[in-house]
Amino acid sequence: MAIIVGNPSVEGKGFIAYSLMHEKKMKMKIRIMALRHLLMFSIALNVGLLFNMYPNALAIFDFNNTSLKLPFYSAPKALDQVIDLDHGDPMVYEKYWRQMGDKTTVVIPGWKFVSYFSNKKSLCWFLEPEFAYAVDRLHKLVGNADTEDHYLVVGTGSTQLFQAVLYAASPPNQTEPISVVASPPFYSSYRLITEYLKSGLYEWAGNANEFKKDKPYVEIVTSPNNPDGLSREAVVNRKGGIVVHDLAYYWPQYTPITSAADHDIMLFTVSKCTGHAGTRLGWALVKDEEIAKKMTEFIMLSTIGVSKESQIRGAKILQVIADSHEKRDKFKKIEPFFEHSYKFMAMRWNDLEDVVDQNKLFTLPNFAPARKCNFSGHIFAPQPAFAWLKCEGEVEDCEGFLRNHKILTRGGTQFGSSAKYVRASVLSRDDVFDQFTERLSSIN
Amino acid sequence: MAIIVGNPSVEGKGFIAYSLMHEKKMKMKIRIMALRHLLMFSIALNVGLLFNMYPNALAIFDFNNTSLKLPFYSAPKALDQVIDLDHGDPMVYEKYWRQMGDKTTVVIPGWKFVSYFSNKKSLCWFLEPEFAYAVDRLHKLVGNADTEDHYLVVGTGSTQLFQAVLYAASPPNQTEPISVVASPPFYSSYRLITEYLKSGLYEWAGNANEFKKDKPYVEIVTSPNNPDGLSREAVVNRKGGIVVHDLAYYWPQYTPITSAADHDIMLFTVSKCTGHAGTRLGWALVKDEEIAKKMTEFIMLSTIGVSKESQIRGAKILQVIADSHEKRDKFKKIEPFFEHSYKFMAMRWNDLEDVVDQNKLFTLPNFAPARKCNFSGHIFAPQPAFAWLKCEGEVEDCEGFLRNHKILTRGGTQFGSSAKYVRASVLSRDDVFDQFTERLSSIN
Repeated sequence: MAIIVGNPSVEGKGFIAYSLMHEKKMKMKIRIMALRHLLMFSIALNVGLLFNMYPNALAIFDFNNTSLKLPFYSAPKALDQVIDLDHGDPMVYEKYWRQMGDKTTVVIPGWKFVSYFSNKKSLCWFLEPEFAYAVDRLHKLVGNADTEDHYLVVGTGSTQLFQAVLYAASPPNQTEPISVVASPPFYSSYRLITEYLKSGLYEWAGNANEFKKDKPYVEIVTSPNNPDGLSREAVVNRKGGIVVHDLAYYWPQYTPITSAADHDIMLFTVSKCTGHAGTRLGWALVKDEEIAKKMTEFIMLSTIGVSKESQIRGAKILQVIADSHEKRDKFKKIEPFFEHSYKFMAMRWNDLEDVVDQNKLFTLPNFAPARKCNFSGHIFAPQPAFAWLKCEGEVEDCEGFLRNHKILTRGGTQFGSSAKYVRASVLSRDDVFDQFTERLSSIN
Repeated sequence: MAIIVGNPSVEGKGFIAYSLMHEKKMKMKIRIMALRHLLMFSIALNVGLLFNMYPNALAIFDFNNTSLKLPFYSAPKALDQVIDLDHGDPMVYEKYWRQMGDKTTVVIPGWKFVSYFSNKKSLCWFLEPEFAYAVDRLHKLVGNADTEDHYLVVGTGSTQLFQAVLYAASPPNQTEPISVVASPPFYSSYRLITEYLKSGLYEWAGNANEFKKDKPYVEIVTSPNNPDGLSREAVVNRKGGIVVHDLAYYWPQYTPITSAADHDIMLFTVSKCTGHAGTRLGWALVKDEEIAKKMTEFIMLSTIGVSKESQIRGAKILQVIADSHEKRDKFKKIEPFFEHSYKFMAMRWNDLEDVVDQNKLFTLPNFAPARKCNFSGHIFAPQPAFAWLKCEGEVEDCEGFLRNHKILTRGGTQFGSSAKYVRASVLSRDDVFDQFTERLSSIN
């Protein structure tokens, strides 16, 4: 019995039907939104006129009276469905890769890549040369990181690489665990990952701004930051510190690329760059040879290397992304990857900011000013992978408040911040994102 | 620039040439061995006659005199090459998978398997259903493990699954680490993996036979055992113990399958079953739901799941193995996988035992008696993936002794045993294995 891994030619037809359907839906949505705006203007005019003519007339518009529902606040069809935006599952990219058809299809014969070793003579002996080449090419194209004078270490996602850094940062024969700090709001998993094994090598020490100990430490700097999308820099800046830069979101669909990052330890992952979260593949650019060696040792002890299949597929995807920008004639009507994804994120943030502005119950971070992206030339403010929503007014438990409206998000306390905040993914599939903005609009 | 993942049709020609070459080499080798035996008999006869006629004549055969080299002890051509048998890289299987051609080729379109999730409703939410099905089918075919009443947890190799068990076995809010024990000789990595993060959850407590503490513990039982290939059972057998059965080698090419294992926690890996070490893929069969949940939690925290590409390829390979036994008409001249690999291992152990018997410097474990394999019907003694060689006589550091002969092995002390032992891989490529036996023969 054969495994179904998908037949692009057959599935493609299904996709075209889906795509056309979605296009029709989008057109209808635009028409509905135009009508909504007209209706809103018309009603506002009527209300103004009525108020002028009969100052007490507004009493008839009892918005708490559920029997009265204005047409543009009608319940979305899927109001009863749970919208899960807790995880950053990057399903938004799936559609683009479907459009690519077989350009990113990988074919792996059964007898290839059977060894533990990719290159026994390489520092990172389980790193596939094709993947290394593709990573280097993409960074050079985008200009977001300096690969020169850096060792490349591949990992089973950047989650594993972060743990490899903690292992590598811990001095041998130390008497107490090294402190791990970050500025809130910080990625919720950092704390969990640092603590789950009760390691004697490292321990979570919380807020980087409050770290005063005169001892070695690891500071994690996520820029653009998860959850709030803002640019970050190290805050401790003391001797004996190892700074890890998590640059998972430093790609031109999320933020303007203003310079090539050249830090000591930089982490990247395909999941947020290309949308291939299931591939479990990340990479680190590391200046210090000993750190790179110890990170490799960690990955050997943790999983004896990294799936070759993931690396081969990751290499293929990264190469196609670079080709989509550099070899335009091969791609016909398909936009270059970062151009397409930039526009898509811009559209989503436009929708989201509209809804939040209109609703008044929530606010989003202030991303101003817009800056020019050296890669694309676009001038824009960050449009991150997550919305760091704040419940304004009296709501203290924003996560619980949204859960009551069947929107699952991750509460601010998990990020070392206040419960008035939540993190909601902006990378869901179109239908889920549309439901999200519609549901947000309907909350009052 | 496209990634080269290999073109089976083109590479196939190269393989056929290689295969013919190897066949010729094998025939030549058989001829040489026959000649060697004849020559040895002839010389023994000569020596016997000479000794009878001239009792002092043997003085002319000074074996320490390098100027005198008997033809059957001539240096192998590659005597200067280092033979690396330290790791169990299962390259022996590569040839079989080449012969399979495109039957095990996987084709993965760029838009498939992009999500973190395989099945959000499943306990192990990152487990691909195709892989689960293939694992279940193979166990039912071989009869080596009972899959009923067990949860299936997939891991990035069984190394990760072993760590997941340690995490799952540690009671919450425990005051001291749980003890981890095994009977020597035990797989060298267990100790390293248990110790490398200085976890407060678990600690290495060494020899299971000497474990006397009246507290919870984890006992690892590897059967057939790595390094010595012998069958094993738990030895502590006390209340509060969690026993992990590492059954990586409980497959019919290594040992007779005498019953379907039905333990609480059983670990398997594709690397030793099929030879796909680069795929980094293993699985656990777990009876207790809470243990299975906590193992899943560990893998989420460690690597946010397991590469989908590895699972899809693993599923394909396992299905083809089952097909090669159950659907013979689809495979023409290619032998069923376990039949082929059984014969191959038998041949290698035959060669190895011949060399060791003749040499007298080394010994191997006593695998008697032969038993009937319920799967294949063959009656045989274990023919494991590793040779657990003992240096007899005065050599105390067997690893160093072999290193001087440019054979890299892993010393016995790493397995909690004596330095008079080493573990050498029996799963290398043909040429490396041939060099190994030739080099062993040449040591005196």
